Amino acid sequence: MGRLVVRSFAVSLDGFSAAPNQSLDAPFGRGGLRLMDWAFATRFFSARFGRPGDGAEGIDNDFVVHSDDNIGASIMGRHMFGPDRGPWDLNWKGWWGDNPPYHHPVFVLCHQKRDPIEMQGGTTFTFVNDGIESALRRAQEAAKGADVRLAGGPGTVRQYMKAGLVDELHLVQVPLLLGQGERIFEGLGGVEDLYECVEFTPSKAVSHLRIVKKQR
Amino acid sequence: MGRLVVRSFAVSLDGFSAAPNQSLDAPFGRGGLRLMDWAFATRFFSARFGRPGDGAEGIDNDFVVHSDDNIGASIMGRHMFGPDRGPWDLNWKGWWGDNPPYHHPVFVLCHQKRDPIEMQGGTTFTFVNDGIESALRRAQEAAKGADVRLAGGPGTVRQYMKAGLVDELHLVQVPLLLGQGERIFEGLGGVEDLYECVEFTPSKAVSHLRIVKKQR
Repeated sequence: MGRLVVRSFAVSLDGFSAAPNQSLDAPFGRGGLRLMDWAFATRFFSARFGRPGDGAEGIDNDFVVHSDDNIGASIMGRHMFGPDRGPWDLNWKGWWGDNPPYHHPVFVLCHQKRDPIEMQGGTTFTFVNDGIESALRRAQEAAKGADVRLAGGPGTVRQYMKAGLVDELHLVQVPLLLGQGERIFEGLGGVEDLYECVEFTPSKAVSHLRIVKKQR
Repeated sequence: MGRLVVRSFAVSLDGFSAAPNQSLDAPFGRGGLRLMDWAFATRFFSARFGRPGDGAEGIDNDFVVHSDDNIGASIMGRHMFGPDRGPWDLNWKGWWGDNPPYHHPVFVLCHQKRDPIEMQGGTTFTFVNDGIESALRRAQEAAKGADVRLAGGPGTVRQYMKAGLVDELHLVQVPLLLGQGERIFEGLGGVEDLYECVEFTPSKAVSHLRIVKKQR
């Protein structure tokens, strides 16, 4: 089975990966999208947003270019799929429009049942109601030996870290104060025995950390 | 009056500046002293610990060399003065022996009264029982126009940040997981309106951040 990996996951200098008050206009919460400015400034994202040739090459670009290497499926929490709460808004099919940038099976953790959605470009959204381990099993089967990317949000990453199910975590420390929001590292006492940081790669804008399971 | 500044203050990758279980052998809590490995590896600290000429020059060394520039007094919390709790152990006179590296007046925040202690080399410890603003006032008077360094620990820095009394904060993000401990950035919602990060200076080992009050 492939590994479960987190890639290009941003954390503010005070430890938050999303700000409060998520809405349609603020997928990372109010003011939270600035956590991704380092990525939006890259050549890779410029091309995705219709400005090929714009944006910077270098360390940050290298990381985002390779964030989907060997990824065969993704897992995300419901709030990363959409801003609505409670019963589904069936008109909402994710943040990314008709052709989302996943191009593989995506498993969405949620409590409310919903039929799968097939999007253009190979992305399917499947809604999983029976827990994080079931979602991981199904994603690993769908990935057919490739790795599974745990896309977010912070609450979802925290649950998988707490269960020791994440194999590798690429964090991006962004020198930005959010003041409040949601943390990955909250109530994770003991995580220091399971995981260690093995690479520290600063760019001009941010610090990239690679955190892996300790070898026993 | 001089400014209130924090210098060379370490934070783990999960946001902790001290580990639990502080003791005589573990001033930063169990396993927490690794937060200072980046500093101990510098030429400056090597000389302080009796190995002049050892240790590395470079970005980290530059920061610690200048951490006491224009500092005329310090403030610290009781746990940064000593590991004891409750009534004073009067035999304990700080972590640093007879000649502490402050060489100026140091104000210790605490609840239990205690007479001042005069140490060798110009360091005096004065114990302040009437709050953080009183300690700041007294430290600023003692500093005679120079700046006051807020030495720590994390709870003390957090209190002064919350009150908006810190003028400048030099944080050092260390790529190390502690799992649990004490945070500066806890319950500081609103701090993002008062402060901003204006400098990001990574070395090979850590990231240095300079955080200042926003200009209004």
